[in-house]
Amino acid sequence: MDDIQRLIALQDIRALMARRVRCLDEKDWMGFADCYAEDAISYSLSANGETGVRGNRVIAEGVKKALEGVATAHNLHEPEIQLVSEDSATAIWPLNDLLSWEKEGKRYWLRGYGHYRQVYKKIGGRWLITEHRLTRLIMEHGNEAPAPMVIPNR
Amino acid sequence: MDDIQRLIALQDIRALMARRVRCLDEKDWMGFADCYAEDAISYSLSANGETGVRGNRVIAEGVKKALEGVATAHNLHEPEIQLVSEDSATAIWPLNDLLSWEKEGKRYWLRGYGHYRQVYKKIGGRWLITEHRLTRLIMEHGNEAPAPMVIPNR
Amino acid sequence: MDDIQRLIALQDIRALMARRVRCLDEKDWMGFADCYAEDAISYSLSANGETGVRGNRVIAEGVKKALEGVATAHNLHEPEIQLVSEDSATAIWPLNDLLSWEKEGKRYWLRGYGHYRQVYKKIGGRWLITEHRLTRLIMEHGNEAPAPMVIPNR
Repeated sequence: MDDIQRLIALQDIRALMARRVRCLDEKDWMGFADCYAEDAISYSLSANGETGVRGNRVIAEGVKKALEGVATAHNLHEPEIQLVSEDSATAIWPLNDLLSWEKEGKRYWLRGYGHYRQVYKKIGGRWLITEHRLTRLIMEHGNEAPAPMVIPNR
Repeated sequence: MDDIQRLIALQDIRALMARRVRCLDEKDWMGFADCYAEDAISYSLSANGETGVRGNRVIAEGVKKALEGVATAHNLHEPEIQLVSEDSATAIWPLNDLLSWEKEGKRYWLRGYGHYRQVYKKIGGRWLITEHRLTRLIMEHGNEAPAPMVIPNR
Repeated sequence: MDDIQRLIALQDIRALMARRVRCLDEKDWMGFADCYAEDAISYSLSANGETGVRGNRVIAEGVKKALEGVATAHNLHEPEIQLVSEDSATAIWPLNDLLSWEKEGKRYWLRGYGHYRQVYKKIGGRWLITEHRLTRLIMEHGNEAPAPMVIPNR
């Protein structure tokens, strides 16, 4: 890989991940599944983070169910991406996520800070996620009565 | 456009947007206006997000007025940028903003999560925003009595 | 510097900073010190932000002490990086940090929004931080009784 090829690979992996979290927050589950390799494994759906779930559609279905009725915002920060070869790479992405839902007139929220730790392969000309883990630094949560809001866009 | 030109364009659009939000948060309204094309249109100043405001100085003036006495922090996350041609592009940027102000001894705050959806043109050798929209995922707000703070820099 | 060299330098400085905040949040103090030049100066350890602390190990030791028993999450957003020459650069990075700790059964937290303003040199083939400042836009803080949490990874 020459310098330009490396820079393009880094850019493509960034764009893949930006797309993944947008699909996640906009609940575009087809688009979300499409960011993973068919036989990708995700360790972020189990309570202990150790049991893997395999298959891009199975992963998307699991995340969809876990987030039913929940509004989310996932934010990715400056990553460390390592190109291992022409068609494989790893990355650590700082990730914050906010989950927000209502239940019995109360608003519940959960805010997490941590890192995605991922492996990618280039398959058929496209970079895809093949392994996905989540490690946590800080978790916050709360609940409060919702208040009416009229907020102009900005 | 060859690969290097594409990479430079992506980088230039990133830097443009980093500058836009810094100028916004540091209330540098000349610098803020300078990030937009002269005849740019912004849909983020109206309550419904549908009515556009045209003109980079008119947009800057409108944002300035809306944020008088309000401290802000706008955070951009990993974007999806599409180069349409040598001199036009679109992007979706995940955006969080925090607004903080005091009124009658209370501190009010508003925290928003969403996406900027933008169009850019390269005019006179510089990438500039020509269209700006904001869509929202989650809004939070609150108010509380302010407390004295002495915080070391870190 | 040609275009490719500039793009690589920008990428290397991004990766340096991603590594710095990961080491900081994972309390890898050797890795943290390794992101600074040996004679680097940091202005973010003094209460006024004006008194500098010199030396990468001294800086790391000072930050380590200040954050004992404190969980942190530092998030970097889209930067403005200026390449001054082949081996020197400056940058402004939007930075949010969350600090979280417990004391006498209460959870205390501090959330800051601002900018890192830095100088880098390329020394022995590696980009390193030589000057580090922090300016603030907004500070928030609070305390509350901690609640038990069982949260699945996601």
